[in-house]
Amino acid sequence: MQKRVYMFDEGHKGMRQRLGGKGANLAEMTQIGLPVPYGFTVTTDACHDYYEDGKQLSSTIKEEIIQSLRKLEESTNKQLGDKEKPLFVSVRSGSVVSMPGMMDTVLNLGMNDETVEAQKALTGNGRFAYDSYRRFIQMFSNVVLGIDMYFFESHLDEIKEEKGYVNDPEMTEADWKEVVASYQEIVEKHTRQPFPQDPIEQLMLAVNAVFDSWNNKRAIIYRNLNKIPDSYGTAVNIQSMVFGNTGDDSGTGVAFTRNPSTGENLLYGEFLLNAQGEDVVAGIRTPQPIAQLESAMPEVYKQFVDVSLLLEKHYRDMQDIEFTVEQGKLYILQTRNGKRTAASAVRVAVEMAQAGILTKKEALLRVEPEQLNQLLHRRIDDNAELNQLTKGLPASPGAATGKVVFDSEEAQEFYARGEKVILIRPETTPDDIQGIIAAEAVVTSRGGMTSHAAVVARGMGKPCICGVESLKIDTPAKTFKVGDIEVRHLDTITIDGGTGAIMLGEVPMIEPKISEQFNQLLQWADEEKAIEVRANADNPEDSSKALELGAKGVGLCRTEHMFMQPDRQKLVKEMILSSTVEDRKEALEKLLPIQQEDFEGIFGVMRELPVTVRLLDPPLHEFLPDKEELIVEVTTLRLTEPQSEELKEKEFLLKKVNELAEVNPMLGHRGCRLGLIHPEIYAMQAEAIFNAAITLHKKGIQVKPEIMIPLVGHSNELKIMRQLVIETAEKVLGAANVKVEYTIGTMIEVPRAALTADQIAYEADFFSFGTNDLTQTTFGYSRDDAEGKFLQSYLEDRILPENPFRVLDNEGVGQLVEMGVKKGRAVKPSLKTGICGEHGGEENSIEFCLKTGLDYVSCSPYRVPLARLAAAQATIRNEGILTK
Amino acid sequence: MQKRVYMFDEGHKGMRQRLGGKGANLAEMTQIGLPVPYGFTVTTDACHDYYEDGKQLSSTIKEEIIQSLRKLEESTNKQLGDKEKPLFVSVRSGSVVSMPGMMDTVLNLGMNDETVEAQKALTGNGRFAYDSYRRFIQMFSNVVLGIDMYFFESHLDEIKEEKGYVNDPEMTEADWKEVVASYQEIVEKHTRQPFPQDPIEQLMLAVNAVFDSWNNKRAIIYRNLNKIPDSYGTAVNIQSMVFGNTGDDSGTGVAFTRNPSTGENLLYGEFLLNAQGEDVVAGIRTPQPIAQLESAMPEVYKQFVDVSLLLEKHYRDMQDIEFTVEQGKLYILQTRNGKRTAASAVRVAVEMAQAGILTKKEALLRVEPEQLNQLLHRRIDDNAELNQLTKGLPASPGAATGKVVFDSEEAQEFYARGEKVILIRPETTPDDIQGIIAAEAVVTSRGGMTSHAAVVARGMGKPCICGVESLKIDTPAKTFKVGDIEVRHLDTITIDGGTGAIMLGEVPMIEPKISEQFNQLLQWADEEKAIEVRANADNPEDSSKALELGAKGVGLCRTEHMFMQPDRQKLVKEMILSSTVEDRKEALEKLLPIQQEDFEGIFGVMRELPVTVRLLDPPLHEFLPDKEELIVEVTTLRLTEPQSEELKEKEFLLKKVNELAEVNPMLGHRGCRLGLIHPEIYAMQAEAIFNAAITLHKKGIQVKPEIMIPLVGHSNELKIMRQLVIETAEKVLGAANVKVEYTIGTMIEVPRAALTADQIAYEADFFSFGTNDLTQTTFGYSRDDAEGKFLQSYLEDRILPENPFRVLDNEGVGQLVEMGVKKGRAVKPSLKTGICGEHGGEENSIEFCLKTGLDYVSCSPYRVPLARLAAAQATIRNEGILTK
Repeated sequence: MQKRVYMFDEGHKGMRQRLGGKGANLAEMTQIGLPVPYGFTVTTDACHDYYEDGKQLSSTIKEEIIQSLRKLEESTNKQLGDKEKPLFVSVRSGSVVSMPGMMDTVLNLGMNDETVEAQKALTGNGRFAYDSYRRFIQMFSNVVLGIDMYFFESHLDEIKEEKGYVNDPEMTEADWKEVVASYQEIVEKHTRQPFPQDPIEQLMLAVNAVFDSWNNKRAIIYRNLNKIPDSYGTAVNIQSMVFGNTGDDSGTGVAFTRNPSTGENLLYGEFLLNAQGEDVVAGIRTPQPIAQLESAMPEVYKQFVDVSLLLEKHYRDMQDIEFTVEQGKLYILQTRNGKRTAASAVRVAVEMAQAGILTKKEALLRVEPEQLNQLLHRRIDDNAELNQLTKGLPASPGAATGKVVFDSEEAQEFYARGEKVILIRPETTPDDIQGIIAAEAVVTSRGGMTSHAAVVARGMGKPCICGVESLKIDTPAKTFKVGDIEVRHLDTITIDGGTGAIMLGEVPMIEPKISEQFNQLLQWADEEKAIEVRANADNPEDSSKALELGAKGVGLCRTEHMFMQPDRQKLVKEMILSSTVEDRKEALEKLLPIQQEDFEGIFGVMRELPVTVRLLDPPLHEFLPDKEELIVEVTTLRLTEPQSEELKEKEFLLKKVNELAEVNPMLGHRGCRLGLIHPEIYAMQAEAIFNAAITLHKKGIQVKPEIMIPLVGHSNELKIMRQLVIETAEKVLGAANVKVEYTIGTMIEVPRAALTADQIAYEADFFSFGTNDLTQTTFGYSRDDAEGKFLQSYLEDRILPENPFRVLDNEGVGQLVEMGVKKGRAVKPSLKTGICGEHGGEENSIEFCLKTGLDYVSCSPYRVPLARLAAAQATIRNEGILTK
Repeated sequence: MQKRVYMFDEGHKGMRQRLGGKGANLAEMTQIGLPVPYGFTVTTDACHDYYEDGKQLSSTIKEEIIQSLRKLEESTNKQLGDKEKPLFVSVRSGSVVSMPGMMDTVLNLGMNDETVEAQKALTGNGRFAYDSYRRFIQMFSNVVLGIDMYFFESHLDEIKEEKGYVNDPEMTEADWKEVVASYQEIVEKHTRQPFPQDPIEQLMLAVNAVFDSWNNKRAIIYRNLNKIPDSYGTAVNIQSMVFGNTGDDSGTGVAFTRNPSTGENLLYGEFLLNAQGEDVVAGIRTPQPIAQLESAMPEVYKQFVDVSLLLEKHYRDMQDIEFTVEQGKLYILQTRNGKRTAASAVRVAVEMAQAGILTKKEALLRVEPEQLNQLLHRRIDDNAELNQLTKGLPASPGAATGKVVFDSEEAQEFYARGEKVILIRPETTPDDIQGIIAAEAVVTSRGGMTSHAAVVARGMGKPCICGVESLKIDTPAKTFKVGDIEVRHLDTITIDGGTGAIMLGEVPMIEPKISEQFNQLLQWADEEKAIEVRANADNPEDSSKALELGAKGVGLCRTEHMFMQPDRQKLVKEMILSSTVEDRKEALEKLLPIQQEDFEGIFGVMRELPVTVRLLDPPLHEFLPDKEELIVEVTTLRLTEPQSEELKEKEFLLKKVNELAEVNPMLGHRGCRLGLIHPEIYAMQAEAIFNAAITLHKKGIQVKPEIMIPLVGHSNELKIMRQLVIETAEKVLGAANVKVEYTIGTMIEVPRAALTADQIAYEADFFSFGTNDLTQTTFGYSRDDAEGKFLQSYLEDRILPENPFRVLDNEGVGQLVEMGVKKGRAVKPSLKTGICGEHGGEENSIEFCLKTGLDYVSCSPYRVPLARLAAAQATIRNEGILTK
């Protein structure tokens, strides 16, 4: 049988899977000669055996533990339970992946009525000995015997009150002795057995308890949350105790080798004299900054600095080190890679690479792409205390504070007075655009991640929370309620669009800032990445932001967002309400110069970089007022003002809205289906694009428009629309005698397009995979209806491993993307391919795109840095697999 | 160069592509020695050359025509333009596929001022000669010179009026001579040239005109409608004229070798003495039945009977023969396979097979499956004159006449009084079920082929027309309008659910009847077909009908239709409105015995045949009242009765409806997503199924339920639902100690299911391809929004070759079906596969299913015969390709 117990000097850091993270590091530190209290690790294999054997330790494992204990006793020259030189040990869990605080620990194991006296004799400190013993009883009883901590704590409080004490340090040896006795009574009362005095029994029970704690509730929840496999199991580390609380020549502390918040290369941490680890945590005494250890214990400090430098170099990463000083001697209890903020992660990685500790590639792999979000948006201060009211869908990242208003007029009014407001609506419509512009942020009680509010807010880089189902809005009364809590007009709230949280009152914020190291890291990323990153941008502002954040072109310019601008709404409505093609053409004629200006703006920013313009995509009814509101208005007017002009108008509008209404608008008359039925719309858009190109040509800028026909499902659709664009180009460019390098392509966003990509490719210069819609149609999920509803349960119950709208579903949707690329390139090897769904800014999806051989990903401007880093990481991880 | 002109004795019937249908048959008849007026055919290749050469005849082709003309002249011993023995010819189009009346014909070509006199001399009939000449001028001027027929006809009318004549026969030779002269003047006035006297010029111009007519407007429309490729082109047949109007020893007629209406094996047709073909068409004189030819011309009749027997035997099909008798001599002008009714097609095919003329397989291929519909539904009499008001979507076949009513209560009321009514609604809801039951037929102005009305009516086998957008219903006024025509309450209309036509008043009908030959044919089909046919049936009545029409099991039993029955609606609403799982379980408890009864009924009919039961599929809001109506009600009540209980109730209902409302219900919370979130619903349904199986087991019937989980997109969904069904089975069957042979499978109806079929197959005993939904998701089309809207334009503009909801889209959706079968069988070779979308009853789709290796197709009961025949035909056509 495989060994189930390893002495620290038998292992090393490569044995994480078997020894757990803590055990492997303790072994490694022992191997490199650091002052680690000696001990041994019971492996994760033993944990599996434990569960397989019906939650008990087999006799072989017990035997191995005893043998290892003997070695430990030999090495320390102490013995567990010995009345003269007693050994005390700590028993700690240690999983493969760190699960801080999730599982159980027992310290001071080996204490009993006899060894406590031996400890008193050895240290000459009876108060310390009995304090240690009562700590052990308390911890062991709670962790191993399952007695609620409350019984011990309340008893201790009683005694202190009785004696008139406020804090523990006032307790004398006699007091602690009294506590020990009454603690033992509590145990006996609960377990109907005396507190176990046999140290071996104590040890075996503690090992069992640690294994049991692998499946305690909070550990399971933590694993679910962090996707840690249940099968890992935990190891148990048994280590001889060192005591930081034996006097003022002792102490304990924690330090990071660099600043975990800023990344500055300076030892960062704190220590407490005459204390054990839990005293630091308890927070009764305030620890001192680590730098002050130098004056308190100069020798120890020097030694610790050396150790920390050694450990950082050895592990090639910033370390989080726990240490204890026992009677002037330094012991290292633990080291691990330090958790850090995004800013710190970036700075540490870059500076370590610059110092030659890491290669650039390694540095790139050290930063979690998703973390970069923190650096780009204003966010809630990590240290802020939050009074969270409720949560919704995190529709657009960033944090904001403001006074609540309930309609767009008010939002504009208060904005004009210089007030900061947050717009609260059941849902928004194009009529609310001015209000959204005026507001700091938007919150809606209905709608999903693709609702009007979400899309518009993301476009503007404004925080937004959608689908807050718990929010009961009373618009006429200008209040909303969550449960019993009422928030009134102009009350202040704070929202975090990155998490979906809504807080009462104001909350401290951190402003985004882009450091030198941040730019350095992204520059290295650009050198590595084998896939281009573009941005989705619908206006010059977004385009500028995209360029600033490193986008190499616009991968998706949604022209409908231009239609939603307030100054165009009237014209757009006029166009939609036209009853003849002539009327519609007339309305389009008026929209033409405005669209042209839009394109001139964007082209002017992106200059020679490619800009993919998607022609009008959403169903026309999206530009008209809400149907249900109209029904209420018409019904009311019929009863109250049956003769009014207003009624006539509203009735006409309702008729039109009804005509255009669809049962499933997602699958309705939209995309190129609009262009095919109303070619005049696409013709106008194409004309605006070419006119804009001419304007820039005259300024000496050769723009590269890529005209994208959305929602193609059959090659004939693209064939006809391509012809329309070419004819428009010939007409417009011909008349101006200007040559523009333009291409025509399509979005692959319904399964049939991917399935017949070989036919569609004949008509396309490029494919852009619209994986938002492709995910909707491949799964048969309406994102608006699924997210926050049944999809939530699916994720909680692990029916789906991931939200497919966040992480591209490689198995299903990915298969179609691969098919599309393969079939498309088979007939047209020069076909350019990209992705412009939201997946374009998600790291796993970017890796998929890279492996599938796409030329670029496109994401919202603020995600461009993330995408650049993720692209670089994916490239590095797949070196050797990728051909280009 | 390939020959461009063939004499009749140089061709044969196999040369259809080159000589056209008519030319090939004339050649064939010539070859087998029938009395065909001699002539030659200018090929379709010449037609292509004509168009390639910019619409002119090349000199080589002209030369070939002249040479062929010379041969014709030699053979007839007449010459074109000869003043003594003039040859006259007919010039007729003849395409590869018959396009009756679509292209142009010129008769009597060769007539001019001289040859008319020669004809007079030869026949001794001046009146006949000048009548022929004026006919020629009229026809030639119209067809070749493009002068409107009106000028000639109005002139002739003037002359007749002047002379006091009523009919043409009153005209004398002199009169016709006068007409000829004035006709020539009309031509000269229009063309500023004299009427062409040169017969060769006439001939060449006529050939050009026939080629031109290939692209006249009506021919193009006809080709579009009948999917005849534009590339075919037409041939031109030039044939020596025979005249049926030279006197009473002459005549002309048309006859079918069997009755085209009933199929009876008796010569069927009519003839007219002393007449040319167009006289029969003109309808001024009434032709006599063909049998009377025996007494009029016994010799000719006998000869004609022989010819018709010979032709039928030669062509091995019922023939449609045109003949002319010229001065006692019979000429055969044309033969072709006779068009026939469904009844005739079936009888002819079966009787010909029984007579040994055809093999059984050939007989099976002779009947168009779609035609069988005619034999199964009551239908409008083919001879009826229709006063068509408007058209909608043909949602459920069959014809009905009744008085219009506008709500369900009235429908029931009049039904109770024995009146026949047709229910007119904007759209129907479950509340209308009683009304639909009471009505003869249903018409809705909104909704598509999958709307509530359509689905329910098809289930009941009741005629239904949906989405009649031109219908403006005024429910309060109890009227509807189409344009300016108003139809009032209790006015009578007739509808044809097979075509979507709505007619004013009553229209004669034909009742369906199933003949002996029909059953014989289907029996032969069953012997041949290599794919099973099942039916979609939701109740015992449909199941019985399915069994009667030859289904071998139920392929789809939609349990939601049971939920829509009026007696369950209250319980279903109660179940949906439950706010806790306990309340819902209580409501389900009450539904259980009712569902069980449903299954007992169906199982009782199908007995040992398999029944695939699909668990609840549609979103729950489908069972609640219409949201928009509720909004109107609530708004009205708020203004009029703000304190009423009714308002409170309606507000509660509206709240629930809003909670359940979805933006895209097609892609929302339905199918197994319901079962996963509310497992109690599926558990109840499974329990009902097993309880029913036990009941039948006790009667000695071993039923075979196949439990189908709808809308699975990820194998985990099926895994969990399968477990639920198995647990229910173990509980229910275990308690009763009964063994039931059941299987569990899924519908493959979203693309992801097909793409990951290898994973899903692990959990499935069978796959049923739900190609309705699969088509919706693969194309990204909402059927409700597409059909009758943009899809209509797509079909008209040939963007799509077929309506993919009617004919399975092999290229796209079919690819997914193939993938599903292949991947599924790869991991589970025993996997049973079928299709249960509406495609299961469409012939091309059935052929696709056969070739893809599916085990069965399932369609609505009334389409089962069609499917059986189509399956047999597909099997025969693919013999040698299929492995089984």
